[in-house]
Amino acid sequence: MAGAPTPAPLKIGVIGLGRAFTLMLPTFLADARIALAAASDPRDAARRQFTADFGGPTYADAAELVQDASVEVVYIASPHQHHMRHTLQAAAAGKHVLLEKPMALSLADCDAMIAACRAAGVHLIVGHCHSFDTPYLRARDLVASGQFGRLTMIQAQNYTDYLYRPRRPEELVTAEGGGAVFSQAAHQVDIVRLLAGQRLERVRCALGNWDPARPTEGAYSALLWFEGGAYASISYNGYGHFNTDEWMGWIGEMGDSKNPSAYGAARRRLQAIESAQQEASLKAARTYGGPDYVSPGIAREPRLFQHFGPIIVSCEHGDIRPMPHGLEVYADERHTFLPLEASAVPRAEVIDELLGAVSGSRPPIHTGEWARGTTEACLAMLESHRTRQDVALRHT
Amino acid sequence: MAGAPTPAPLKIGVIGLGRAFTLMLPTFLADARIALAAASDPRDAARRQFTADFGGPTYADAAELVQDASVEVVYIASPHQHHMRHTLQAAAAGKHVLLEKPMALSLADCDAMIAACRAAGVHLIVGHCHSFDTPYLRARDLVASGQFGRLTMIQAQNYTDYLYRPRRPEELVTAEGGGAVFSQAAHQVDIVRLLAGQRLERVRCALGNWDPARPTEGAYSALLWFEGGAYASISYNGYGHFNTDEWMGWIGEMGDSKNPSAYGAARRRLQAIESAQQEASLKAARTYGGPDYVSPGIAREPRLFQHFGPIIVSCEHGDIRPMPHGLEVYADERHTFLPLEASAVPRAEVIDELLGAVSGSRPPIHTGEWARGTTEACLAMLESHRTRQDVALRHT
Repeated sequence: MAGAPTPAPLKIGVIGLGRAFTLMLPTFLADARIALAAASDPRDAARRQFTADFGGPTYADAAELVQDASVEVVYIASPHQHHMRHTLQAAAAGKHVLLEKPMALSLADCDAMIAACRAAGVHLIVGHCHSFDTPYLRARDLVASGQFGRLTMIQAQNYTDYLYRPRRPEELVTAEGGGAVFSQAAHQVDIVRLLAGQRLERVRCALGNWDPARPTEGAYSALLWFEGGAYASISYNGYGHFNTDEWMGWIGEMGDSKNPSAYGAARRRLQAIESAQQEASLKAARTYGGPDYVSPGIAREPRLFQHFGPIIVSCEHGDIRPMPHGLEVYADERHTFLPLEASAVPRAEVIDELLGAVSGSRPPIHTGEWARGTTEACLAMLESHRTRQDVALRHT
Repeated sequence: MAGAPTPAPLKIGVIGLGRAFTLMLPTFLADARIALAAASDPRDAARRQFTADFGGPTYADAAELVQDASVEVVYIASPHQHHMRHTLQAAAAGKHVLLEKPMALSLADCDAMIAACRAAGVHLIVGHCHSFDTPYLRARDLVASGQFGRLTMIQAQNYTDYLYRPRRPEELVTAEGGGAVFSQAAHQVDIVRLLAGQRLERVRCALGNWDPARPTEGAYSALLWFEGGAYASISYNGYGHFNTDEWMGWIGEMGDSKNPSAYGAARRRLQAIESAQQEASLKAARTYGGPDYVSPGIAREPRLFQHFGPIIVSCEHGDIRPMPHGLEVYADERHTFLPLEASAVPRAEVIDELLGAVSGSRPPIHTGEWARGTTEACLAMLESHRTRQDVALRHT
């Protein structure tokens, strides 16, 4: 509106300039509502690049970053096992927290993080997670509207090359937060919970850990039961063979066009690598500040939405299939397509929710309490496989 | 080979001239290796049509059909709840049995049928079932060859309009053999077992029974664990919204081209019907001998293979995706397509297996013992949903 003052951008301090950060960078670069003010990372090279790119102060230690007076929100993108410590530090410094998934590796950690943020009066928002993607949010609205009757069944699948992307050694150890459950079910379970809009009651799960050279689970299938009587069947396979992007119009997870003829690229790259150290170095080289790092640049035109594989949401009187360009709606009488136009800012939904929370204008969805539910479900998946029985949930 | 005598066609007597029979009729019409010799059905009109079409004797009572001296093999296509009685009658008369799935509605019935056929020295082959479809048989060969390493995971989905096809009242009562488990899991579980080539150990299942006007389960999702450590995730939804034929190149279950613009046809037809009697009459009118029956005619050119929805078979070093025209093979190094040419005779695989058994030239796959395993798994799916826990299997 003419004359309305443009609010000053929200100042973000980043903990951890790794892969999660580089996946959020296109958002930070393109969204004028926020600004990157400071960063911490143990790697000199990453800190130097941050200073060169954004000019803000940098710190080797996250404990110093959270004390930086220019920082209003701390974005925590450190390795999974550090999420709790960094959240407690940010809350103690009175800073709002935007925290990458998975929230933490135990429910006790989640409880401590929620309590710390509540005591400090700061918001805790967990994401990016694909449950922020607009097609899932709009599908959830359709389900919640009741126009198709009760929710009955959700089906979610995702076949990727997840396990063969370059990793640090800890990312291949489940106890340290590695593996498909902490990294990938954290998306899929979150999406399914969001779509259902009901408390999750029970989980039964099978895990797949099939490559001795990558000794964490790279696959899973699970049944999830909701309080209202609906159930979900979710499956993930990250072993780099069939790719479900074929069923998403060859649009990849990041909303990008996929080239089917690049089949097997991740595995081939990895086969040229001789050791875990070399693999970690390769990952570091491509990470922010590394010699092979390529800046994503600013997105200049709307892309398609990001996604997490084929999902079919069934209600009594219709199925909804979220796609990168809109919603396929299969009602009793007819099949229609509801187009959705993506923002020029990828993952703008994360900034929408963060600003809505900080300004008090819109209660956030992806709170600590919400994310604890997904963490509980992920832990239950691991436990169900181990104990060979259903696991009942308390928090979700 | 020139001069080799053509064997006389195997003479088949049919019990039950209903929908299962009409789905096998294109096979019987096109395959010169068999001949329809006699039939029994309680409906006069069906018997009259059989005589007009094939000239053989017909009987109102199956007990008379099995005594017909011209009959070498009894094809049992009666409603599910009569399978045991008719199998015992055929065996007592010394006739081989080709029996439609599901084999029976209890393990005790399966045991009695297996014992009776064994005592009589006759073959019992259970099918047609989609596990006869060549793409599944060839995929099984690839898995069994070990060239892709151990089997790890199978994913099978099928979204159809199954529940809204015209039904007799009993087909909507699970206890009488109705519902998606007895009718549809009987295919899907059988295919998954065939592909795995391993004993099935445990089942966990969720059922969906969501339309009070069709009060049987129209959907399910289940996890199946195999002895060798692999697992399968299977899902079915017959509520007539999304259709997975979209992921099979718009080829339908019968190998036919599907027209996506016919969306919702089954539900619309059913909505014009006022009562269960009228629905049963409609089904009867379209059945063999009914006023609206249309003969399938003889297939004159190769079609695509039949299928039962998208299935992904994962091994350590490759995924295999059976399709109506061949196998998509996603190996570590490359993605290839193995084309398979369909016979001019649809479901020729059933006659192959029947003749191989009767002539002693090839041991059959789909024996009574085999089919009992699938029946046990289907019963376990019903029990797991009821008891909310895993069900261990003994026979499969």
